[in-house]
Amino acid sequence: MPMIITLTTDFGNSEYVGAMKGVIYSLCPDAKVVDITHEIRKYDIRRAAYILSSFAEEFPPGTVHCVVVDPGVGTKRKGVIVKTSRQVYVGPDNGVFSLVKGIEKVFEIPRKAKSKTFHGRDIFAPVAAEIACGSNVEEMGKEVKGVRRIIGDVKVKGNKITGEVICTDSFGNVITNIKSEMLDKEYGALIKIKVGGREYEMQLVESYGFAGGNEMICTIGSQGYMEIAVNMGDAGKNLSVDRGEKVEVER
Amino acid sequence: MPMIITLTTDFGNSEYVGAMKGVIYSLCPDAKVVDITHEIRKYDIRRAAYILSSFAEEFPPGTVHCVVVDPGVGTKRKGVIVKTSRQVYVGPDNGVFSLVKGIEKVFEIPRKAKSKTFHGRDIFAPVAAEIACGSNVEEMGKEVKGVRRIIGDVKVKGNKITGEVICTDSFGNVITNIKSEMLDKEYGALIKIKVGGREYEMQLVESYGFAGGNEMICTIGSQGYMEIAVNMGDAGKNLSVDRGEKVEVER
Amino acid sequence: MPMIITLTTDFGNSEYVGAMKGVIYSLCPDAKVVDITHEIRKYDIRRAAYILSSFAEEFPPGTVHCVVVDPGVGTKRKGVIVKTSRQVYVGPDNGVFSLVKGIEKVFEIPRKAKSKTFHGRDIFAPVAAEIACGSNVEEMGKEVKGVRRIIGDVKVKGNKITGEVICTDSFGNVITNIKSEMLDKEYGALIKIKVGGREYEMQLVESYGFAGGNEMICTIGSQGYMEIAVNMGDAGKNLSVDRGEKVEVER
Repeated sequence: MPMIITLTTDFGNSEYVGAMKGVIYSLCPDAKVVDITHEIRKYDIRRAAYILSSFAEEFPPGTVHCVVVDPGVGTKRKGVIVKTSRQVYVGPDNGVFSLVKGIEKVFEIPRKAKSKTFHGRDIFAPVAAEIACGSNVEEMGKEVKGVRRIIGDVKVKGNKITGEVICTDSFGNVITNIKSEMLDKEYGALIKIKVGGREYEMQLVESYGFAGGNEMICTIGSQGYMEIAVNMGDAGKNLSVDRGEKVEVER
Repeated sequence: MPMIITLTTDFGNSEYVGAMKGVIYSLCPDAKVVDITHEIRKYDIRRAAYILSSFAEEFPPGTVHCVVVDPGVGTKRKGVIVKTSRQVYVGPDNGVFSLVKGIEKVFEIPRKAKSKTFHGRDIFAPVAAEIACGSNVEEMGKEVKGVRRIIGDVKVKGNKITGEVICTDSFGNVITNIKSEMLDKEYGALIKIKVGGREYEMQLVESYGFAGGNEMICTIGSQGYMEIAVNMGDAGKNLSVDRGEKVEVER
Repeated sequence: MPMIITLTTDFGNSEYVGAMKGVIYSLCPDAKVVDITHEIRKYDIRRAAYILSSFAEEFPPGTVHCVVVDPGVGTKRKGVIVKTSRQVYVGPDNGVFSLVKGIEKVFEIPRKAKSKTFHGRDIFAPVAAEIACGSNVEEMGKEVKGVRRIIGDVKVKGNKITGEVICTDSFGNVITNIKSEMLDKEYGALIKIKVGGREYEMQLVESYGFAGGNEMICTIGSQGYMEIAVNMGDAGKNLSVDRGEKVEVER
């Protein structure tokens, strides 16, 4: 069966995506390369981590996920192969794998790139292709301790939940790392939320459509994370929060 | 032979396209998923219907076209499977299938989604994958009468043709539902067109390049529909017409 | 083995990409169609030529590269098939193949399009599909002399190198046709560059990150071409250079 390689990058409208695909098909002609998105905001590692967590596990066992959002290319940051019980991830160890679940082993990729600026083509694409075509990841690098995590865990203490903003999406919806099962609220309930140094009371609604114009609401996204949104507006700007900002919710 | 599934959505730069592809490849690993576009203007059902009509029939028999432009997700709008003599369409019954020709049968999809907001992943992708892998569409839902049509038919009466604006494209070209064979004019002819409450006389030209700066012309698009364009300009704004607006042409 | 067809166009968010893919899969169901980009700036032939040169040779032997950036569609410009020792290129002969190396033969495509505006669907997609499925390019058209080249050669005379601006990328980085091996400089060296009628002295750095705010630097891109960049800025605007502009460098 042809192995799938997914590609998630911030390359946008550039010459880079094509080069990576060429390298992959040259090394592993039977691979199935699947574009996820190449339009991640330049260098937005948290957004990449979130997007990765939203689709990766939907793919079949054995899928290789190649992620290249890499502001530190050319510096000392490691390149890694991440093995979970079902799949493999390849990319820079800069936090893009923060939300990957079930990690079994992590290997540092030892090879050197011919260019200083394009490890996607020179390192990550060939490594992904070799894995898709059967190379043993255990022999491809030195095992290291784990991946770099830049998104914290949620803390629940008494009736207070403390999480953080993972990222905002292209509509300005603010995605937190607080899961719906932690909230334990019914749709319609009012929720007290402290974020960006201010307190709000927002209604938990089933979908954005339930919010009036300019009203701030919270909802549960397609992946089960609590999001703060403004119907037809930009919640990220309204709250003036940044990625990583602390979010406190009263249960 | 691997069956093709095409994807046409308004998901843009989001986490949604990847999740749909993962679901499809998990259920039907041999499917060939083909991206059409994910950059349809949010909720622009008419544009999706037009784009669908422009490529669907170019694909081989048996192709499954999955369309997710779905402002009503979570409401009572039906999800449908549309069977023509050659192909199958899957998506919300909100008008996106208005221009599909040769419809033989329509089935309502009975299943429920695990999320309120992402039927692309939870319903339409799995249904498309099952069809591509051989499920019998006749057994996948209850037959219903037909699809919802939101684009009217063209009326020809005496020397007057009455149609409507299907949509504008990303250049502001105004695409009507009037076909070139109804027009029965030679290139170079002047045509009287009434739209947006005003009358114009425009030249029918072979391509946009024939228009002078800011001149309004009409031409026949690559699919045989009459379009109104302004060279280097935005005809939709010039005419201040909206989608669905009536267009009268004198033959 | 399935043959690969790559697609590089300026079709953007349009109905055109899907139609080309449909035509290809109908004529050659086993082809693997690979998207490079459809977001080339409208009619930017030089940018298309550059992007093509950046990925084409990474692909396996036998790959068919189909390029449709075609401002002259409907006019007298030829459509061509370009055969190199390893691969085949298909598209309009307007300069998009200026940077293709190792050309062995060029054939003019004799066929006529059913539309005046969409040779991508009517001519280039079917020709690419037929080649991918085994048609002999030698029999598909009349051999012609070569392709149209719109990017000049670099001249080296004494210690002066004279090249030109190929294009700017989406960040405004100015890409020249001067190769790093011609420069013969170490990173850190100051380089005298004359462009747009003015003289500059810029540092040659390993990557954009080495430039201070608003400082103009030069660097070597992932393909070995000298580029002029402004960190967090738009070098193209700063220099007010256009594509094709002469660039003189002192060795």
